[in-house]
Formats: sequence, C-alpha cells, structure tokens
Amino acid sequence: MDYQLILHEIYEIISAQKDRGELASYIPELAKVNPDNFGIYLTTVDKNEFGIGDCYTKFSIQSIAKVLSLSLAYKILGEKIWVRVGVEPSGTPFNSLVQLETDKGIPRNPFINSGALVICDILVSQLKNPLQDFLSFIREISDNANVNFSKSIIESERSVGYRNIALCNFIKSFGNIINDPDEILNFYFSMCSIEMSCQELSKTFLFFANNGFINSGNKQILSISQTKRINAIMQTCGFYDESGEFTFKVGLPGKSGVGGGIIAIHPNNYSIATWSPKLNKKGNSYRGMRFLELLTTNTQSSIF
Amino acid sequence: MDYQLILHEIYEIISAQKDRGELASYIPELAKVNPDNFGIYLTTVDKNEFGIGDCYTKFSIQSIAKVLSLSLAYKILGEKIWVRVGVEPSGTPFNSLVQLETDKGIPRNPFINSGALVICDILVSQLKNPLQDFLSFIREISDNANVNFSKSIIESERSVGYRNIALCNFIKSFGNIINDPDEILNFYFSMCSIEMSCQELSKTFLFFANNGFINSGNKQILSISQTKRINAIMQTCGFYDESGEFTFKVGLPGKSGVGGGIIAIHPNNYSIATWSPKLNKKGNSYRGMRFLELLTTNTQSSIF
Amino acid sequence: MDYQLILHEIYEIISAQKDRGELASYIPELAKVNPDNFGIYLTTVDKNEFGIGDCYTKFSIQSIAKVLSLSLAYKILGEKIWVRVGVEPSGTPFNSLVQLETDKGIPRNPFINSGALVICDILVSQLKNPLQDFLSFIREISDNANVNFSKSIIESERSVGYRNIALCNFIKSFGNIINDPDEILNFYFSMCSIEMSCQELSKTFLFFANNGFINSGNKQILSISQTKRINAIMQTCGFYDESGEFTFKVGLPGKSGVGGGIIAIHPNNYSIATWSPKLNKKGNSYRGMRFLELLTTNTQSSIF
Amino acid sequence: MDYQLILHEIYEIISAQKDRGELASYIPELAKVNPDNFGIYLTTVDKNEFGIGDCYTKFSIQSIAKVLSLSLAYKILGEKIWVRVGVEPSGTPFNSLVQLETDKGIPRNPFINSGALVICDILVSQLKNPLQDFLSFIREISDNANVNFSKSIIESERSVGYRNIALCNFIKSFGNIINDPDEILNFYFSMCSIEMSCQELSKTFLFFANNGFINSGNKQILSISQTKRINAIMQTCGFYDESGEFTFKVGLPGKSGVGGGIIAIHPNNYSIATWSPKLNKKGNSYRGMRFLELLTTNTQSSIF
Repeated sequence: MDYQLILHEIYEIISAQKDRGELASYIPELAKVNPDNFGIYLTTVDKNEFGIGDCYTKFSIQSIAKVLSLSLAYKILGEKIWVRVGVEPSGTPFNSLVQLETDKGIPRNPFINSGALVICDILVSQLKNPLQDFLSFIREISDNANVNFSKSIIESERSVGYRNIALCNFIKSFGNIINDPDEILNFYFSMCSIEMSCQELSKTFLFFANNGFINSGNKQILSISQTKRINAIMQTCGFYDESGEFTFKVGLPGKSGVGGGIIAIHPNNYSIATWSPKLNKKGNSYRGMRFLELLTTNTQSSIF
Repeated sequence: MDYQLILHEIYEIISAQKDRGELASYIPELAKVNPDNFGIYLTTVDKNEFGIGDCYTKFSIQSIAKVLSLSLAYKILGEKIWVRVGVEPSGTPFNSLVQLETDKGIPRNPFINSGALVICDILVSQLKNPLQDFLSFIREISDNANVNFSKSIIESERSVGYRNIALCNFIKSFGNIINDPDEILNFYFSMCSIEMSCQELSKTFLFFANNGFINSGNKQILSISQTKRINAIMQTCGFYDESGEFTFKVGLPGKSGVGGGIIAIHPNNYSIATWSPKLNKKGNSYRGMRFLELLTTNTQSSIF
Repeated sequence: MDYQLILHEIYEIISAQKDRGELASYIPELAKVNPDNFGIYLTTVDKNEFGIGDCYTKFSIQSIAKVLSLSLAYKILGEKIWVRVGVEPSGTPFNSLVQLETDKGIPRNPFINSGALVICDILVSQLKNPLQDFLSFIREISDNANVNFSKSIIESERSVGYRNIALCNFIKSFGNIINDPDEILNFYFSMCSIEMSCQELSKTFLFFANNGFINSGNKQILSISQTKRINAIMQTCGFYDESGEFTFKVGLPGKSGVGGGIIAIHPNNYSIATWSPKLNKKGNSYRGMRFLELLTTNTQSSIF
Repeated sequence: MDYQLILHEIYEIISAQKDRGELASYIPELAKVNPDNFGIYLTTVDKNEFGIGDCYTKFSIQSIAKVLSLSLAYKILGEKIWVRVGVEPSGTPFNSLVQLETDKGIPRNPFINSGALVICDILVSQLKNPLQDFLSFIREISDNANVNFSKSIIESERSVGYRNIALCNFIKSFGNIINDPDEILNFYFSMCSIEMSCQELSKTFLFFANNGFINSGNKQILSISQTKRINAIMQTCGFYDESGEFTFKVGLPGKSGVGGGIIAIHPNNYSIATWSPKLNKKGNSYRGMRFLELLTTNTQSSIF
C-alpha cells in the first residue's frame, strides 16, 4: 500500500477542516502548547517509515506512557499483575473514583489513572532505581537514548494533581498501593511527562505490531501472548469512556494521551502515531481520531 | 491449519476437566437443559466445516440473536441508529438499570438488554410484520428455512421477565421506546427464543467473517464498513461486563447467550460456535470461553 | 397563639411575591390545574381551626397519600413491615431506580415511589377489598365520607406511568413485590389520585399531632410509638432529596405531593396543610415550603 | 421526671445484655480502648445533672467535634456557609467519595467527612490561629479549660488517614478546598482528637437544648434560628447512613463518633451524652443507640 500517498491525502482533508476541541487546560504547561501542531508518523514491521507534518516535534506523551509501564510490569511479573488490576473497560471517565469504591480498590484496567497508579506501585516495588530503570527500558525499546522526562511538566502536573493524589490515597486506603503514596505519585507524574515525537513514538511502539520483537526481530520484549493481550487491552480500554467509539470507528488497538498524542497498532503491519493537541470532550485528540478513522475506513484495513 | 485436529485436541482437554458454573436457572425452561451438552462448529470463509460433540443439537441462542436484530436495523437505517443507542461498553451487568438513569434513557450499547430493546423498537417501527420479517431475514442469511422461535421459551421468559419489563418501561419513560412496551417485549422475548445448533449458528454468522457477504459471496447483507463495525461492537461489548476479559483471553469479536452458546468471528478466516450450558458468574458459558481461549492461544491466531 | 393573624400575615407576604416553579407537567391532568391556587388550613389538637385562601378546594393529594397507606400497613402488621422497606433517606430523587439495584429490591423508605409500591403490595395482600378498605380507613380518620379517588387522575397517571411500571416490575424481579405488578400499580395510581381540600387534609392528619388519637381522643388509630415513628420518617424522608432542606428550614415533620400539597405536623400542637401547585426543581410546592418556613421561623416554633 | 432512676434502670437492662459490635479497629489508638467502658451523663436546661457508669472518663469524641466546628463556622459566616456544603442526608457511608463526583465537590452535609473537611477549610481561612482559636471556642462553651487535643490520637489517625487525604484532595480538585490540603487535614485530625468525658460532653452541648445560650443564659453562642437549624441537621445527618434509623427509634437530634460517644439533644429539656466503644456496622455505638432508644421509648419523650 502506498502509505505516503494515503497519509498525504488524509492530512490534506483534515487540515482543510475546522479543528474542534480544546487544549488540556487543567495542566498549565500543556495549555501553552501551540494548538496547530499536527503530525503523523507510520512505521511498518518491514521497516518502512512515513511521516508528515509536525512529526519530528517532541510533545508530552502523557497517558500513552501507561502502555509502556504496563509492559514492563507484565514482563517482570507475568500474569500475577492481574490480581491487582482488571482488564475490563470502566464505562467511566479516566479519573473517576466511583468504580474504586464499588470494587474495593481494584481498578478496572491499567489505563485509567487508578490502574496506572497500581502499575506504578508494582514497578516501584520491583525496580532497584524505579525511574532510571523505567527510562532505560523505554530507551531500549525505542533504540533511542534521547528519550527523557520533562521537569517542567512534572512540576506543572504536581501543582494541580489533586485528583491523582486523591486516587492514590484512596487506593492506598484499600491496601492496593503498597508503597508510600508520594513516591508512587512522583513516579506517575514523571512517567506521564515523557516527551517523544510522532516518529519516536511510532518506532517505540512498533514491537506491539511485531509479536513483541524489537531490533529487526533480534530481541523479544514480550511474548507473543503478552503482546496480543496488551493490544487487546488497548482495544477495549485505550480511550477511556470513548474506547468503544474508537474501536467502532477506527478498529485498531490504540492509546491516547491528553497531550494530544495517539498511538495505534495494526498487528503484523504497522504502528502509527498522531499528534494534534486539541481534545474532544472525552479527552482524546479530535484530529488524531478523525485521521485514524479515515485511514482505516479508506483503506478498509481495520482488524475487524 | 488442520482445524479438525485442533478442535478435537481442545475438546478432549476440556471434556477431561471439571465443568464449572451453573445453568441459567432464572428462566425455568433453560434450567431443564442437559448441562453436559458440549458442541463446537467452525466454518471457514472458503467453506470448509468442522464439527465436534453436540454440534447438531438445537439450543436457545438467547442474546446471540441481538447481533442479528442489530444487523437488520443497521441494514435498514444505517448510521441513524446510533442516535438512540451507543457503542460503549457499559461496565455493568447485562440487565442493569443504573446507567440508563445517568444517560437519560440512551443505552450504552446494543448488546445489553436495554440497548437490544431499543433495537427491537426500531425494527417494530420499520418492519411491516416485525416477527415474520425478522425470521425471514435470519432464514435468508442462514440459508435455512428451518430456523424458528420457541413458544415454550417465549412463555417461560415472559413468566419471569420482570427485569426486562422494568427496563423497557424505564426507557419508555425517557422517550427512547416509541411503540407500546408490551409489543416490544413480545418481539424481544421471541427474538431471544430462536433455536439453532452450533452448525447453524456458525453458518449464519459466517458473513461477519466474510465482509458481509453470504451465498458464496454472491449477496452482500452488510457493507464492509458495517460488518467491521458490528464486529468491533462484539469485541468491546459482546460479553457484558466480561467483554474485556474475553478480548484479553480470546482476542476475537464474539457474542454470548445465557443458553450457553457463544459465537466468535475471525475476520477473513472463520466463524465458530460453541455450546455448553453451564455459565460463569458473569453469565457466559464456562466451557465455551475456555475452548476459545485455548483455540486462539494454541494457534496464536487472535486478531491482536 | 393567634394563628389566624399569623396565617394572614404570611399569606399576604407570599402572595405579594413572585411565584416560582412549574406545574407537574408530566401528568397531563395535573398540568390543567390553575397554578394560582393558594390555600392554607391549620387545625390544633384542641380543635381550633384556621383557614385562608383556597383552603376548601379539593386537589390531588398524590404522594401525601403514602403516609396514609403506610399508617394502615403499620397498624395491621406492626414492626414486621420494616423487613421489606427501610427508614433511611435515599439521597436520590423520588423515582430513582439506582438505589434498588444496590439494595437488592429493598427500598430505602416508604415515601419514595419504590417504597410506597411495596407498602401497596402489603395492603393488597392484607386487605379483603384493597381499594375499598383503604378508602374506608381514610374516611374513618378524616371523619369524612366525602373523600374519594379521581378516575380522571388515575387514567392520566396510568397513561404516562412508565417509570412507576418500571419500578414495580424491577422490585418484583427482586421478589419484594408478592402480587401481580398490574394490581399493585392499580392500587398505587388510585391511592395517589385521592382528592382533598386543605381543610380535609389538615383534619385527616391531625391524629399525627395527637398521639394517634382521632375523634376528640376517643379512638386511637396508631400507638404513641407508631405515631412518633411515622412522624420521624416524615421528618427524614418526607420531601424526597429535599428532606434535609425542609427539616433545616421548617423544622416540622411533613410530606409533600406533586399536586402541590404539603402536610406538616407539630406534635401535640397542630397539623397544617398548604396547597400551591407550582413545584420547585425537587418536586415540592414552592409557595408551600416558603409559607411553612416563615411560619416556624416567625413563631420560633419548629420542633428543634 | 426522675432522670436518675430512669438512667439507672436502663443502664441495668443494657449492662445485663450482651454488647454487640466491634471497636473502631482502623485507628490503632482507638483499638486500644477498653471496650467495656459504659457511661451516661444527662444535663437539663435548669442545670440538674445525672450521671452513671464511666461518665467521668475522657474519650476521643471524634466526629462529635464536627458539630462544634460547624457551630463556630456558622457563628462567624452565617448562612453563607451553605454555598459550600449542603444540608441533605447523603444516603452513603461517612467516608464515601461517590457523591462528591456527582455533586462536583459540594458535600451533601457538614457531618460526613467531606463536609467536615470543607468546614475545616472555612475555619482555617477565618481564624487567626485556627487550632488555638477553635480550642478556645470549645473551652468557652464548655466552661472548661481542661479540654484538649490528643497528640497520640492525631498521630494515630494521620498514620492511617489515606481515605481522608483522598477526600480532601478530591474536593480540592473541584476547588471547594481553598487552603493547602495538608493544613486542612492537620486541623481535621486535631479536631477529631479532642477528648471529653460524658459529663463534659453533655455540658458542652447543653446550649443546643437552650436556644443557643450558655452560662445560665447569660451569653448566646448561636441565635435561636441557628441553634434550631444545627439541631435539624443533627436529626437528618447525625448518624451517617443510619440517621433515619436513629430518628425513627430515638427521635432526638444527635451526633455520634467512632470513639463510641453519642450526644443527643432534647430541645428545651436536656442534653445527654453516652459512651460505649463497641460500634455497629454503620459505625455508631451499639449500646449508646440502645440506651437512647429505651430512654425516649420508655419516657415517651421523643420530639415527635
């Protein structure tokens, strides 16, 4: 398929339309981003790469990082992690506390904030130097020593992170956070602050399209079964309470972040990263979702 | 792939293990079924067929019929139907009323009971002879004049159907049921009473694996996009509040019924029907889920 | 205390102010009532009576009748009734179904619709001719053979009563309605259709201020303890999710109806009925609540 | 009425019965208290006093202090405080976060933990030396310079106070906590740590039975209207999701604490404090509730 042509055509269509939605205003630092940024990058499993627009500009990947922390925790502990977090879509917004009260502190899935906090707690328990080791893991799978946390984003999130502080302490009250809440929150805010460009993001997530292999297939990060299972969770839970809509319209596993990024995976084919900062009401990039919908609709290439 | 061998091996494994779960006791007629029934049938898009166990015995397909009523409504009205029902997983049990109160009578998806009732309402409005026309549609796609409603099941469900009566009147109170609730409930109970064997079920659902085509590809029931979209909804919503788990473990779009049947679709490959009446706590067939998990795990053939 | 003067003064003040709120538009028959009606009637335990405005015009007492059905059920069965319905404020609107799902069909209190339906079920089981016997009970305590059901209101409510049909069948699905839901709903709609004037209402409810005695103290309808306990439930649950507000501002046990009536009790002193059809957002008479607030504030006579 | 005799009789009855319930085990320091403690103290508005059992032993008054902080905030700001907290019973446990999510950070009432935290926030904003000034207020109304915070209880609560930390940060995320959450939590834990005996508690709360006056009527702490209104809130919200039950069985405004204390008010008559540390499932003293039920039932003296 001539991806460069396809990306170009869709990019033209969407650029010509009015961009809807709003910047993630609740994190001061994110509200400063130029809302007109719009980039796409697609990497195929046979190593062809296609980019357009602002695809080399770094941005805050935010919740997309939750897939990477989940991967590392899953790699280390295997199926044991599912005792502490579920794999069901939540039916509620990403930062909701309601479900936790019903389910006694077991988050529905690892991609809502509560579930991601529990995964952070697992990593903090398992890693010797949690933040450093996590960064090393990302640098390895991205083959990129350039990936880093953003101090200004960390500070910005911490200054307004009351909801996440509430979530973390709430889970702690049920006993499903083992470590000190402040340490977990520090890990969580740092993880979410990671900055990547569409190009970097697309390459970092390629192993999800490649049965868990990186490095031209020389090294396996996750087993085939684990890779498929994380893709499955991205499919049902990757877009908060818009996951069904994304599955319905786009038909690929994926994950969004409030920085305006989206990663989507076509197993055995490609990984694609989009970035456009304006978010719809559910907190997902408006243009990114539109782009991916047109991509799989026009090419009839959803996994369904 | 040698499906006959694979089906045989997994059938042996599971038959040797203890069957867990309980019959759907709340519908008297379903509680009479022999719990030891266990059948599988797989039909490939290139028309090969493989069956094992009680795969020619008819059983009550129950909620699996919701996929067929959705297909007919979607075929008739197109995207307009999504004004009246969503495509998001609900995060709550199949017969919950809670979500409706929050969402003002718009069910989260067409596979929870409330959403299926709204789809019935659409069909009752659109069809000249609703039940007869619906049956004709199923007979056409199954190429089987033998498919029928079961009067005893209809009566049995009606006698205990208070929760569904509640749901239907509740939605009516929000204005999202147009017709008389009794008529909708009659359609609903009839639809759920349809009886098919695994063989019939597998063949009836083959068009979801075949881009919407039946009859060796001579007739298209749904467009490619519509077919993919219904598969997508099966993926995120087909197993009530266990949809995430099914996606995670099996990795195929599918739909279950409290009669113990499950249909699953591997797009462009096959449709498979399983039947074993004992249900787990979430209302899905215990053995059926286990069978499909082993099938896609052993053959590494989930769509993810 | 010179009640005639006090009533007159407050009546003047409120009549001079703008009436807020809306008629109960969802029941067609109630929407036809002249919204300017405004009447008050106060009866003291020593048999003095004071009326003002439209206090002799009959209106639909609606939910106020729930106190009378509760009284009869309590009189017949005693404390046994609390196995089937609670005495806690619900924190949710009068016709909410959410709480029932959590509490497995046990309504929080007998004054929300679900609880009143359970009380109706008790009466239908206990009374030989339910509607006739219930009417006789009311005629006895009101000393008024003139009290009756309104056929037009019954029909009007039935024509739009989907929410109550839903509630009744929902409770039935939990097993906490014994009889046929249609029979219970018929009793419920009839009970709510009773018509009384403020004068009649005030006199009917006087026994709650008089330790359970009617007929100048010659006959006891409820024991002192039972009387106090129903007053207590009126205090905490009489105004749906505005019960706290009424207790806070008025400080008397009471009960409202969507017909615009309110009854309030000052134990050992008086019963007072108000009627003004425009309702605030919580479904309680706007002017009625204002009147009672001024009455107890100006006379410093709340029970607290 | 011969209160000494009445108290004595009921004390005998209850002491002879098995004590049910459990100590508040979640706060380590409270779990160390001798569960057999049982004291009662009643003070009448005409200054007669009656005590029995362990009525001179100090204990942690816990949530009972919320009535005192509310009184001080109400005294300072008047009706303005109700913009930030409601007066409705919540229908949920004392430490629930669910309702806050629906109501956007406005707690239902000032006696659930969330509401008490908002009141603390008001006091921290309004008082020069918050903790010192609050203590002075309590010492004034109790006429007792001996009342104090307990450092060991403060530390004990802080060490396990994750749920309250979650609540406070959750409200802060909605903007209904102005100050730093840590400062509010410090005030909250200190307030709850206050220790009093039944005698001290009964005398401290006497002004609620005395139209707001202390010091033999020489000084008014709250206006009559304010006093009545706080009594009203105690009536509907004083016992968490058992407030309806307490109103039903006891029929007095009151407030409980997880230290096993209960204060109850009979307006214009008396205030009574009970203490017995074993709590029922709703978190209220088992023996205390039984005692007060027998008291008002035997003397037919509830306010209803």
